Amino acid sequence: MSSREMKLDTGMVRIAFQPSGCRIATVSGTTVLACAQKAGLGLNADCGGMGSCGRCRIQVQPNAPVSPPSEPEFELMGAGELSAGLRLACQTRVFGSTSVYLPADSVSTTQRLQVEGQGTVIDPDPPTTLCELSVPGVTSELPRPDWERLAEEVKESGFAEPGPPRLPILQSLNDLLRIDDGRVTVGLRNDGISWVLARNRPVLGLAVDVGTTKIAGYLVELRSGKTLASAAKMNSQIALGEDVMTRIACTIEREDGLAILHECVLETINDLAVDLCKEASKAGDITGTPEPGCIVECVMVGNTVMHHFLLNLPVAQLGMAPFVPVVSRDLDFKADRIGLHLNENANVHLPPNVAGFVGSDHVSVLLASGVSTSSETVLVLDVGTNTEISLITRNGITTCSAASGPAFEGAHIQCGMRAAEGAIERIRIRGRSIECTTVGGCAPTGICGSGILDAVAQFRLHNVIDRHGGLNADSPFVTRGVYGPEILLVPAARTGHGRDIVVGRRDIGKVQLAKGAIRSGIHILLDAARVSPDEIEKILIGGAFGMYLDIDSAMSIGMLPRLPANRFRQIGNAAGAGAVRLLLSRSLRKDAASLAGRIRHLELAGTPGFRSTFINALRLET
Amino acid sequence: MSSREMKLDTGMVRIAFQPSGCRIATVSGTTVLACAQKAGLGLNADCGGMGSCGRCRIQVQPNAPVSPPSEPEFELMGAGELSAGLRLACQTRVFGSTSVYLPADSVSTTQRLQVEGQGTVIDPDPPTTLCELSVPGVTSELPRPDWERLAEEVKESGFAEPGPPRLPILQSLNDLLRIDDGRVTVGLRNDGISWVLARNRPVLGLAVDVGTTKIAGYLVELRSGKTLASAAKMNSQIALGEDVMTRIACTIEREDGLAILHECVLETINDLAVDLCKEASKAGDITGTPEPGCIVECVMVGNTVMHHFLLNLPVAQLGMAPFVPVVSRDLDFKADRIGLHLNENANVHLPPNVAGFVGSDHVSVLLASGVSTSSETVLVLDVGTNTEISLITRNGITTCSAASGPAFEGAHIQCGMRAAEGAIERIRIRGRSIECTTVGGCAPTGICGSGILDAVAQFRLHNVIDRHGGLNADSPFVTRGVYGPEILLVPAARTGHGRDIVVGRRDIGKVQLAKGAIRSGIHILLDAARVSPDEIEKILIGGAFGMYLDIDSAMSIGMLPRLPANRFRQIGNAAGAGAVRLLLSRSLRKDAASLAGRIRHLELAGTPGFRSTFINALRLET
Repeated sequence: MSSREMKLDTGMVRIAFQPSGCRIATVSGTTVLACAQKAGLGLNADCGGMGSCGRCRIQVQPNAPVSPPSEPEFELMGAGELSAGLRLACQTRVFGSTSVYLPADSVSTTQRLQVEGQGTVIDPDPPTTLCELSVPGVTSELPRPDWERLAEEVKESGFAEPGPPRLPILQSLNDLLRIDDGRVTVGLRNDGISWVLARNRPVLGLAVDVGTTKIAGYLVELRSGKTLASAAKMNSQIALGEDVMTRIACTIEREDGLAILHECVLETINDLAVDLCKEASKAGDITGTPEPGCIVECVMVGNTVMHHFLLNLPVAQLGMAPFVPVVSRDLDFKADRIGLHLNENANVHLPPNVAGFVGSDHVSVLLASGVSTSSETVLVLDVGTNTEISLITRNGITTCSAASGPAFEGAHIQCGMRAAEGAIERIRIRGRSIECTTVGGCAPTGICGSGILDAVAQFRLHNVIDRHGGLNADSPFVTRGVYGPEILLVPAARTGHGRDIVVGRRDIGKVQLAKGAIRSGIHILLDAARVSPDEIEKILIGGAFGMYLDIDSAMSIGMLPRLPANRFRQIGNAAGAGAVRLLLSRSLRKDAASLAGRIRHLELAGTPGFRSTFINALRLET
Repeated sequence: MSSREMKLDTGMVRIAFQPSGCRIATVSGTTVLACAQKAGLGLNADCGGMGSCGRCRIQVQPNAPVSPPSEPEFELMGAGELSAGLRLACQTRVFGSTSVYLPADSVSTTQRLQVEGQGTVIDPDPPTTLCELSVPGVTSELPRPDWERLAEEVKESGFAEPGPPRLPILQSLNDLLRIDDGRVTVGLRNDGISWVLARNRPVLGLAVDVGTTKIAGYLVELRSGKTLASAAKMNSQIALGEDVMTRIACTIEREDGLAILHECVLETINDLAVDLCKEASKAGDITGTPEPGCIVECVMVGNTVMHHFLLNLPVAQLGMAPFVPVVSRDLDFKADRIGLHLNENANVHLPPNVAGFVGSDHVSVLLASGVSTSSETVLVLDVGTNTEISLITRNGITTCSAASGPAFEGAHIQCGMRAAEGAIERIRIRGRSIECTTVGGCAPTGICGSGILDAVAQFRLHNVIDRHGGLNADSPFVTRGVYGPEILLVPAARTGHGRDIVVGRRDIGKVQLAKGAIRSGIHILLDAARVSPDEIEKILIGGAFGMYLDIDSAMSIGMLPRLPANRFRQIGNAAGAGAVRLLLSRSLRKDAASLAGRIRHLELAGTPGFRSTFINALRLET
């Protein structure tokens, strides 16, 4: 009898399944499939565990105490898969305590790690390992302190050392060990116990895209990787300035400016977390009540100024050349350090930024769109109040930031509004009438970003305006308004609020500035890389506006280079999608750090010829 | 030419001198003595660097890039010293960047690491390495962020990796790098940059003994190890209860009880830090202005209940058997986590506690008194509101806590007061008169702990009271007071405030309870270890009261066993002295952790026969 068979007869081993954190004890020598079934995890086993269907693929750690690959495994899987630790659960026997990863494809019950967007499957490496423990109570024979009892259970689990205690964990531990009879879910990191939740509470993650105008949040169930709810809120900093420059000025003019702006952005995110939990509660597809206190992991992406406001870092130096941030590298803090009302021990990750005006939101877009490893020549635009533009070529990634202003978010436009119900999002001139399509199909109440872009393109096409944006007084669409000539889109009688919806000269000017900034950014990037517009194989357009804009209109006013339609992709809120993926994967976080280090940043204002390029780009050519 | 000689000709190396943190760059191959002279550090060199006086001993790190020991070193130093890394500065040449420790004995200028008390020289291992850096400013060619510029300097220094940034450092970094032209002192730990101070500020440490009644603090200059100031303040928690049990009850009765008690103890310590800085400012023997913001390292010792109050941990479970703390192990937190108004990045270390009523203050006493490694049979008492008693024998350390009450701190005594000016501290009955000695020699205003102990002993000796503490109505010293018979110590005409100073039956009862608790603790410890009182080779008595009590009086009322006078040592505030030493030494912190793990704790109330032992010990035998 070999020593391994000896063990098979006598020893007990512990298996932890990732990403769920579910643990069970079993006799040494049991197959992973049997363990998973015992733990109530539905692994695919179409062939009944005969090793012939190949659908119960799992991943084991390097040097895990498991049986060597069997004949059926060599037949069904390549050497590459086997060397990457992929195995068949029905063929793999466990001889020591270890952790096993169940890829989403192998699980028959709901367990999803793929997120919306350009989604590829996420590597099996959550930044925090979930571990379910039962901590014994105090006995008068062995009156061990609360922390020491918890630490011993963690040590025994074999996944990590308990590490040094964090104060907020100690402050709540006495209560926590009594809520669910000592049953807790513990988040473990390299440096030890990161957070502790009573077992009857859901384990949640939050991904946030902190925009200058809008803050978008995604609530994720960490065990399954499933997005439970998503929502957006206006950034309440708007009260102190529509754009980042005004807000930076506010911190210089007012002594409490930075503190107030910090409070504003925190308040919006804290409110958003409450909203998301309520929404997830309504959907009701998880056990336990989702509350901000159950959010134990968080990723925040945003432009560099928002990043600094969030962390209460001074921003004055971001308002003047050479636009130096306090810090660029990726950061990890506890939620209560920042002032976020999540679980006070929640790990908040902030991916790296690239420069003063190229933030982690753009790094997130590049990651989510998968272009960072592309061999094609790709242009990526994330359109917002600042529009970040990246050109990816065989020679690397170059990025710039264009000050496009808030016009495409529907702001600073006379009858502008967000892309909510009643917003005009599409305009066509047919004969002597203007046809408007609204969000939700109801009576129009204003015009959103994609609508104003469409309007300008159509006006120019039908000679309602000239190439400089001036209104053609001879056009039947031009009427005399209170402040001068204007174009009547929808008369009061047909609107939702009983007031005319009009477009004026100033509105057209705002669109010119926005499109001019974007186009000159594209122009200078292509120039610097010696790439002609024709050579661009793919143009990815991110952001909510980017999702709905009419590519033809954008090309017709010269905002985008004229290229065949099949080269364009509208990728939606890729920054948010990237944040959700960063929430679930440690290796993606490493990729983000290395990506940010590889990006060359081009400061537009410092580029020779920028001014004349910009002025040329203001023209509305057809 | 060997490769080493090659280096000698061309390379530049950096030397950091510890504990000062002073760094210099020099050509490879320079002697440590020459480097130290270049850095302005006065190393002893009586022989002029000939290797004959042996007074320039230094310590190098294992495998440091230095020349092998020379002939003079082998002659002057033992193999033991050499293998411990001790070298002669004049004989040791440096061939790569390294850190060199200068023991206080080798330095001719002021540099002290020895602290008051039982002081032995502290091992050369400060918990945080001080490092002086000059961080370059921003240039428009290379607009690197603040953190990244600092991190690169740290990396280049070769002492530690910069580690992940802490948020409060980032929040102040922009200002900090501009105060003293980028010149900063950085505190480095294993996990990276711990704190950053402008170079023109002193680098301070704070050691605190958090008592139930009194909080004592010591301000230390970290570069020299010199104690700049010491002071004590009444713990403002007293308003919510004189003893820990009353304060625990307060947290149960009032919802905000714990929060208030936490605030009180913090407030006292924060005030104490301000006082200490003012006192050090007056003394004026350091450069720069001492302020709480310069305090970057801190050690706090105290009983377990004070420890929990300090950290805002629940204490209810410390008020009932089996008296389980939330945590026992040693802890490290940042000052702002706790709510201390020191440098917000200051490292606060809390040594381990042993049990619910044996705290880190007693661990500190055992460390400071050096008995933890003693081969003698030693009894250690730390007299306070709770008196911790340890018996050290060849078989280990056993500790108990006796509820002695506040009588020996002058509290709960009719005319009691702290041992301040005017307090009666010594009493002798000669014939028909009572002679009183006061602190400071001025007119008496009350009676302190050592005074009341002396009084009871003298009263018993002269039959003013009987063995049960009852007043002898026949004694000429017993008079009729407002509340019953009492003993007049000083008539109103001779006191500082014009009121009689008297001792009543209740006061004598308080002393009986205190001495009874202490004596029965001693008795039970000896009993458990099967040691007779005669076998005790040394009795160490700590605490302010312990410093001034009359050993004869204490023996005569049976508080201490009757032993020859030369077996007693009055060691003063050994807990505070221990805290100062823990502030300066990482290895002592490790010793404290292992010591706490080795102590056996004896729960007096749970010991069979405790009640009858205690009742017997109440008697005032002579």
